[in-house]
Amino acid sequence: MAIDKILKLYKEKIELRLRNFLDEKIAEAEKISNSSREIMQYIKEFNLRGGKRIRSILIIMAYKSLGGKNENAIIDIAVSAELMNSFLLIHDDIIDDDELRRGGPTMHRIYAKKYKSYDNPKKFGESMAIIAGDILASLGNEIIFKSDFDEEKKIKLLQKFNKVVKLTCYGEIVDVFSSLRTDVTEEDISKMHKLKTAIYTIEGPLHMGAIAAGASDEQLKTLTNYAIPLGQAFQIKDDILGMFGSEVKLGKPADSDIKEGKKTLLILKTIENSDKEQKEFIRNALGNKNITKEEMMKIREIVKQTSSLDYSQHLAEKLVKKAKNVIKNSDFEKHGKDFFLKIADYIIKRDY
Amino acid sequence: MAIDKILKLYKEKIELRLRNFLDEKIAEAEKISNSSREIMQYIKEFNLRGGKRIRSILIIMAYKSLGGKNENAIIDIAVSAELMNSFLLIHDDIIDDDELRRGGPTMHRIYAKKYKSYDNPKKFGESMAIIAGDILASLGNEIIFKSDFDEEKKIKLLQKFNKVVKLTCYGEIVDVFSSLRTDVTEEDISKMHKLKTAIYTIEGPLHMGAIAAGASDEQLKTLTNYAIPLGQAFQIKDDILGMFGSEVKLGKPADSDIKEGKKTLLILKTIENSDKEQKEFIRNALGNKNITKEEMMKIREIVKQTSSLDYSQHLAEKLVKKAKNVIKNSDFEKHGKDFFLKIADYIIKRDY
Repeated sequence: MAIDKILKLYKEKIELRLRNFLDEKIAEAEKISNSSREIMQYIKEFNLRGGKRIRSILIIMAYKSLGGKNENAIIDIAVSAELMNSFLLIHDDIIDDDELRRGGPTMHRIYAKKYKSYDNPKKFGESMAIIAGDILASLGNEIIFKSDFDEEKKIKLLQKFNKVVKLTCYGEIVDVFSSLRTDVTEEDISKMHKLKTAIYTIEGPLHMGAIAAGASDEQLKTLTNYAIPLGQAFQIKDDILGMFGSEVKLGKPADSDIKEGKKTLLILKTIENSDKEQKEFIRNALGNKNITKEEMMKIREIVKQTSSLDYSQHLAEKLVKKAKNVIKNSDFEKHGKDFFLKIADYIIKRDY
Repeated sequence: MAIDKILKLYKEKIELRLRNFLDEKIAEAEKISNSSREIMQYIKEFNLRGGKRIRSILIIMAYKSLGGKNENAIIDIAVSAELMNSFLLIHDDIIDDDELRRGGPTMHRIYAKKYKSYDNPKKFGESMAIIAGDILASLGNEIIFKSDFDEEKKIKLLQKFNKVVKLTCYGEIVDVFSSLRTDVTEEDISKMHKLKTAIYTIEGPLHMGAIAAGASDEQLKTLTNYAIPLGQAFQIKDDILGMFGSEVKLGKPADSDIKEGKKTLLILKTIENSDKEQKEFIRNALGNKNITKEEMMKIREIVKQTSSLDYSQHLAEKLVKKAKNVIKNSDFEKHGKDFFLKIADYIIKRDY
């Protein structure tokens, strides 16, 4: 099956289960209080708003590629990844002061808008979003408890999940610091990408699926060797899309990285390769919340002129090739190999 | 053994394990990055700052009272409760804009002070505290995975914990709303107390210990019937201490409830029983961050004059009596009965 069809098929299955599970949770919350029902409804809307579902599809496909047969059970684990992802995104959006996510308002903005007559609606919105994230983390665990795996596997899955969340938090800390410091190195950025993207988006999900399928330690190691370069490529691609991608397809403005002052590899390379005047222009633009369209266009020009766009694109391609070689030299069955190779190409070619 | 000695003995054991576990986590975080090591050190300091350890002692004593023998294993579960409690407190402190906790700065204040040269240290502090809370939730799960119970019990314990955290979050939402609304009823407050205190502080821990000891459904039911009124009494006592207690013993100012605009039962009763001028005075004081010592003294006077202090104290005593009767009529063994009766008296007599 073509990768697009696989992605579409499982996206639908995941979203159906997500919807059913969250409807159950709304019914449960309704018995507690109106405000619990309300937050659960917002949580449902936020989770069903879309997104690529890349992590949850990786879980399912790694499971199937390594011989797993219990589709309903693995879909529950995939839904757990979606819930955990929403938990981290909601907290991340508070931290970054973001207004848009998946084409709609961020959780803190939903509450700030709805209760705008309150004394300090921004503060109120952030408070509710902190709690919404905490509830989502608990729901992410809950659906693993309910899944049709045995206790030993459930513990292993929970343990893995937990470890990934902790590492992602460490990555988030490096990220917060790096947007505030001026002395960020390429090494800092690599570290952050490894934690926040390679482990969180690629290795973690692949390991979850593999653990559920009863993979050997050696198989897990192969998946790590594949996942880490692929994840780095994924992040570089994300940074490129964040500056040159379509706002409509991405569901978020293509100037948000600059406004937040994010030091992406793309930006770091650009600063390194630019002349004094260009350097100053970019340094002033980073973190400027009122940047104009014209200024953004000028930044994009500098990124191209300094060959930083080319550099990033080539690096991403090299990393994907490295990842694919790991799979080609592995002893995975043809079925699994095919999928892992296809997903590597997909990740670098995607336009959102 | 006298209750004070039991509390002291287990407090020490819990704190020793907490210290060892967090030292391991610091060593682990050190390998990731300086900022990970830093947050873990703050997490350790925050956790070892003190606190009554009431939840974790209830876990241990419920376990022992119902025949549990593996002390090391149950101490890990108790430490999990401490870590989870810190997670919720750190997020709660951001929401309430609190500066002090257990006699030291709140987590967001620690970071805001240390990085005061940053652009927006308050925002930065809150961001780091959101992440610190998320890391603590993950550590709370981690130590359960490591505990020396079998997989089935671990899943049951995690499931229980998870449910308690979710209900506590629902209680927190009611709490946030109630400090912003003027139409809060005694029923709203009872609901919040049930979720945030009775379930979280008393029933949850007792059930955790009981589940670990392999308790029957009937024994869990008895513990619920004991825990709910006891928890309500605990909360009423907390509100009284929050207004009339010693700042030194409590480790937080005795005007913080008023400054936050918290609608405690004590305050609600006072408003109900006061004359027009007193009502207005209290309504204006609620949420006033700049309240003076004189104004606080006047509020305390009104609370006494309207017999609201007496009303609250009597209600708390009645609830404790109800809780004790459940235990007296239960078929728990003498050893367990004694402990549950003693702890009920302790909760109502404590001065911090």
